[in-house]
Amino acid sequence: MKLYETLAESIAQSIQSGILRRGDKLPSVRQTSVSRKVSPSTVFQAYYLLEARGIISARERSGYYVAAQTSDIPLIPEPIISDDVEVAQVDVSELVFDVLESIKEKNVIPLGSAFPSPLLFPLDKLGRSMASVARTMNPWASVDNLSPGDADLRRQIALRYMIDDISVSQDEIVITNGALEALNLCLMATTRPGDTVLIESPTFYAALQSIERLGLKAVEVPSHPKEGVDLVAMARAIEMHHPKVCWLMTNFQNPLGSLLSDEKKKSLVELITQYKLPLIEDDVYGELYFGKNRPAPAKSFDREGWVMHCASFSKCLAPGYRVGWVASGCFSKSIARLKLTTTISASVPAQLAIASYLQKGGYDKHLRNLRHSLLVNQIKFIEAVNLYFPAGTRLTTPQGGYFLWIKLPDGVSSLQVHKEALSNGISIAPGAIFTSLKNYDNYIRLNYGHIWNSHIESAINVLGGIVKNLSQQHAI
Amino acid sequence: MKLYETLAESIAQSIQSGILRRGDKLPSVRQTSVSRKVSPSTVFQAYYLLEARGIISARERSGYYVAAQTSDIPLIPEPIISDDVEVAQVDVSELVFDVLESIKEKNVIPLGSAFPSPLLFPLDKLGRSMASVARTMNPWASVDNLSPGDADLRRQIALRYMIDDISVSQDEIVITNGALEALNLCLMATTRPGDTVLIESPTFYAALQSIERLGLKAVEVPSHPKEGVDLVAMARAIEMHHPKVCWLMTNFQNPLGSLLSDEKKKSLVELITQYKLPLIEDDVYGELYFGKNRPAPAKSFDREGWVMHCASFSKCLAPGYRVGWVASGCFSKSIARLKLTTTISASVPAQLAIASYLQKGGYDKHLRNLRHSLLVNQIKFIEAVNLYFPAGTRLTTPQGGYFLWIKLPDGVSSLQVHKEALSNGISIAPGAIFTSLKNYDNYIRLNYGHIWNSHIESAINVLGGIVKNLSQQHAI
Repeated sequence: MKLYETLAESIAQSIQSGILRRGDKLPSVRQTSVSRKVSPSTVFQAYYLLEARGIISARERSGYYVAAQTSDIPLIPEPIISDDVEVAQVDVSELVFDVLESIKEKNVIPLGSAFPSPLLFPLDKLGRSMASVARTMNPWASVDNLSPGDADLRRQIALRYMIDDISVSQDEIVITNGALEALNLCLMATTRPGDTVLIESPTFYAALQSIERLGLKAVEVPSHPKEGVDLVAMARAIEMHHPKVCWLMTNFQNPLGSLLSDEKKKSLVELITQYKLPLIEDDVYGELYFGKNRPAPAKSFDREGWVMHCASFSKCLAPGYRVGWVASGCFSKSIARLKLTTTISASVPAQLAIASYLQKGGYDKHLRNLRHSLLVNQIKFIEAVNLYFPAGTRLTTPQGGYFLWIKLPDGVSSLQVHKEALSNGISIAPGAIFTSLKNYDNYIRLNYGHIWNSHIESAINVLGGIVKNLSQQHAI
Repeated sequence: MKLYETLAESIAQSIQSGILRRGDKLPSVRQTSVSRKVSPSTVFQAYYLLEARGIISARERSGYYVAAQTSDIPLIPEPIISDDVEVAQVDVSELVFDVLESIKEKNVIPLGSAFPSPLLFPLDKLGRSMASVARTMNPWASVDNLSPGDADLRRQIALRYMIDDISVSQDEIVITNGALEALNLCLMATTRPGDTVLIESPTFYAALQSIERLGLKAVEVPSHPKEGVDLVAMARAIEMHHPKVCWLMTNFQNPLGSLLSDEKKKSLVELITQYKLPLIEDDVYGELYFGKNRPAPAKSFDREGWVMHCASFSKCLAPGYRVGWVASGCFSKSIARLKLTTTISASVPAQLAIASYLQKGGYDKHLRNLRHSLLVNQIKFIEAVNLYFPAGTRLTTPQGGYFLWIKLPDGVSSLQVHKEALSNGISIAPGAIFTSLKNYDNYIRLNYGHIWNSHIESAINVLGGIVKNLSQQHAI
């Protein structure tokens, strides 16, 4: 843990234990710097972190106070809970593609992108691993690395599960072209056209695209922006609509940033096991946590093999290498076959380079740096949104990942914001692409996985102005 | 053209022009070596080539003779033409997987494999390209290389089309994870579950697996082992069964090795254009020709954009890199989107390494060497099959690729041969995996893409013995 995190933790404990109470003023940065024997910038970082988490709040020219936990600090948007969950023919692709195409331009500030900045990754070290395996590659590797994939890489992945105390055998791991292929193969292995798939609302748009492409139907279950999918609504949806599979993100969900507690994950696994309902667990952001430990995947509570755990190296190590995997319990044989008959294998040099990088060590150190950079970015982004967006804006403070889910003031359409932002050279992800149900038009998702700089700050300033204008137009 | 090819060509012309007649004895190797001022081994190679093509034949201890074109030389199996083509629910996966799994073992002589020997490829040079791009990779390449793929690589591919005088714009090229993904994306782009797909009989088993996986039906059109798909039967099948798309291999078909003439390809394109029937053209073996020039793909006769031309670097340059492509006429936009939503992009370092290799030059030289090695192998294999297999065996002499399609004597089951061969440490591909219609059980496919050595020779000897035994059992 970084020094400022330790400090923040210790202050948070003081608050929890009642030593510091709601409304109390915190010692000044200088006082704390002296008393704790740390630099002022460490104190600043700790205060930022606590502020980002809503534990303390700054008052202008006065200092920091223990938060009253009222709406003067970053707020969680209320969850959208419909009494009944709906089944829908999915037909979002055109909107999603229009948005994705429009934000692909290189000179656009990519706050709507789904990818973090590639500058956050150890591309040099990885490149050296690649260079070395490419020059010495065993000619027969192309045969040995056929689905289910390179044995060394699968062993390295199994080792990481073991370290996290999750029981996954290397034999149930299938290497894929990134997590997206893993997710798609899981969906293909468990459904036939016309079947229903249970997803969260809002959900990662690629799930909607896959459901549409395979001729499936979606039932969207409400999800809490902080605590994740509503299990009561989910149980009701299972009873009513008999889905063949569910597809959820348990850790730092895209777009919400929500995180299921261990308790809730356990209940989730009990629920799906009771109904013998396979769960596709998309866990691509699990390593990007800001807390003490990696949050467990639902897979760790799975005793009967109903959870297909999908992850990848694209979001935390090697963007563009296209190496992901699925640990798929009783489905691994059929998934390995599907992989073989659709794309044969992941690129062999990429598999070998990542296996070699992992073997050399240093991955955990890189992850610590990456998490730190993302947290610092999050704090900066939240500050800027609080500063530049108009009253009535509410946002989440995710405990990991790199997405902020922002509720705009009433009546402001995110599609309108998207259009105006784009004409100002800024991309955002409008809420409507995260559902098949025409919801979330006054939400946007911002990507804070780009290193903070003045261009980003002024982009958020411009965005805030656009939102303010639209909000005032609505009020009139 | 290699020296021995020039020599063979010149001898063939002497025969064609009547200077040498059927049954004439050819000058001895030594005589020819002296008269033509070439080495004896060049003469041997030329004679081998002519023998493999059925133009001359060897008589033991007597020398070479102009072939009588009777059945004492390699024979083409008669095409299987059924009066009517059938539509079938495809259900072959289990058999195919059983066979493929069983022949994966490393210590098995891989005559049943679909891959050529990786030793035939310039892995060193390619590895150096990979090492250099991996170390200097632009961090943003992972974003720039998203579907449709790396612009440099697409330009290099478009250049090769241009050199072959085929009009393909770089904008209609989508980079994929090998040709198999390209073929699958084409199938997804043109069908919905329940639709019918027109294929050849016999056909590459992956087509059957894809058809089964996507819930499609197959109509199998008879294919001539030398001249390829029967266009009359194909037209009848289109009228009767209204397929939504057809999937054919025009050059050195797997498993037949058949090659459609330019004239026939032109008629094929006219036929599909008339019916507005998209054609998925699998052309992964097109570069592996033994004749003077690369045979044109059907794509080169396509004026209206109905042909989706799929190819890859896996069979001729970079096995395991998983880089292929499709040039897909009016379907390219929807295919690029399908690619993006299923696997996002091909591995970026692999794309860049191949683009860099192509840019440096040397690909054509490598291809010439590769073709030469395959031809030499083919000659050796055909000699050995003629020597060791019993009477009643018939085989093709493909003009490219690396597969021999062999008809066993009447009553010999290839599944039985497969079983006995495997227990002797030899794999073959039994005919039954190339159809959904329970045909071809007395055919086998042998892979001659492995460098000739004494192990391979004795494997063919053992195989011949197995076939002989089964044939004698049948006769009793």
